This record gives sequence, structure tokens and C-alpha cells, in this order.
Amino acid sequence: MHRKYKIIAATALLASLSFGAYAQSAAERAIQYRQGVMRAQGWHLGNMAAQVRGDKPYNKDDFARSATFLSQLLQMPWDGYGPGTEAGAPTKAKADIWLDTGKFKSAGDDAGKAAAALAQAAASGNMDQIKVAFGATAKTCKTCHDDFKSK
Amino acid sequence: MHRKYKIIAATALLASLSFGAYAQSAAERAIQYRQGVMRAQGWHLGNMAAQVRGDKPYNKDDFARSATFLSQLLQMPWDGYGPGTEAGAPTKAKADIWLDTGKFKSAGDDAGKAAAALAQAAASGNMDQIKVAFGATAKTCKTCHDDFKSK
Repeated sequence: MHRKYKIIAATALLASLSFGAYAQSAAERAIQYRQGVMRAQGWHLGNMAAQVRGDKPYNKDDFARSATFLSQLLQMPWDGYGPGTEAGAPTKAKADIWLDTGKFKSAGDDAGKAAAALAQAAASGNMDQIKVAFGATAKTCKTCHDDFKSK
Repeated sequence: MHRKYKIIAATALLASLSFGAYAQSAAERAIQYRQGVMRAQGWHLGNMAAQVRGDKPYNKDDFARSATFLSQLLQMPWDGYGPGTEAGAPTKAKADIWLDTGKFKSAGDDAGKAAAALAQAAASGNMDQIKVAFGATAKTCKTCHDDFKSK
């Protein structure tokens, strides 16, 4: 196929994908994007918490998978907090995110670093290390939510 | 702090995080997890589509970032399709996901491979390669949605 037609075909394909995005405002998409990423973070944090607590048997591979995914997901939501995304869909994001961007960014960086350390601990399979790294990661989540998410 | 208390503290921290997960059924959480991951995929696919189409100026780093994130996100949703997650929250997932698991898994693998190739092409910055790899990736998304997602 000629390149031009390949591009047209790709574009048509994309438009036909029902991501539900095409009738939405940019702010609504951004808000739902960051909420989707956060929800996925919560799922993997919850999966690890269940194993740390002993509610679910510890499985090294399953735990390490969740730790890696959480670490990857913690790099992602920030794209969804751009200018103009303070409102446009139901959101619990506090205005401080846009008023004190430096502090918000720093809290996000802390969470990313803690999750990377957790992923390393998870790869080791050493439960003592895992518990400490998990607690540190959960604390960065809580700190950021306390400061930047409404109840 | 004694290890036992560290664990209790981590657990208390986690319970206090308002992920909205604690009053939900396991199926509802799984459904919302996979939908969150899919929404994040759609965001990054859309960001790349805008650049392929020329609606947004091409930026190598921004495009490569979205390609990497999409590739990572395409490893994630499958955890949310476990047994018992056919219903429990609004979902467009077709029953075929659980009736023809092999085909579903294979479609997911195809998407993962296509996105990994797109991430490689994106790192090269070669727009001809990128367009081909992008079209191939969008096609795997469409194929899976056609087969396994209700309109």
C-alpha cells in the first residue's frame, strides 16, 4: 500500500476505535486519563497490600509484577494535570496542584522513587525488605493524597 | 520501629488511602481497573495519532514517551479479566473473552508485540517507520475491540 493510504487507513482505524474520547473535551479526557492511571495504581498497591498483610498468600512473581507495574504507572499520571485540567469532569484534585506545582511534582517524584525501590525489593523476594519498601511507598501515596486530593 | 509495628503502620496507611476500593466488590474493582488501564492506553494512542495525523507537531521525545507507556500499559489489563469479572460493574466486555480465552489472550499478545515494535520505531525517530508501526498497533486495538467489546 502506498504510504499515504497507509496513513489514511491508520487514521480511519483509530477514529473507529471506541475509546469514548472523541465527544469529550480535552480536560475531561485528561481528568479521566489520570483517574484511570491512579485506579490502576490502586489495584496493584492493593494486590501487594493483601500479600504483605497475609490476606493472600505471597507469590514472588505476582508481587514483583504488581511492583513493576506500579513503578511504571507512577511515571504516567502527571501528563493529565496540564493547564486547564483543574475542572471539566468530576475530580477530587485540589487547586494546590496548579498553585504549588513544585511541591506536587516533588511528591510525585518521591512516589516514583519509592515504587522503583519497591520493585527492586520485590525482585529480591526478601519479605523484610519488601515490607519496609512497601510501607515507604504507601506513605508517599498517602502524603500526596493528603495534600492534593479532596476527601 | 519494630518490624511488626512497621507492618501495622503500613497497613493503616494503606487503609486510609481513599482509592475508593474498599467498599467495592472484587469484580467491580477488576472491571474498573481494566477500564482505567484501557483509558490510559487510549490517551497515549490519541496523543500519537494527533502527531501522525499532523494535528499536533511531532515531538520525538513526547511521542516516544507515549509509545513506551502504551507498550507498558498493554501488559496490564489482562489481570482484570479473571474468573467472575464478567459482570459486577458497567462493562462492554463480551462473554467471548471468557468463552474463547485463547483467542482473547492471543489478541492481547498481538497488541503487546505491535506496541513494543512501535516503541522501538518511536525511539528511532524515523517517521516512515513510526507510521507503519503505529498503523499496525492501531489495527490490533481495533481487532480486539471488534471481537471482544460491545458497541
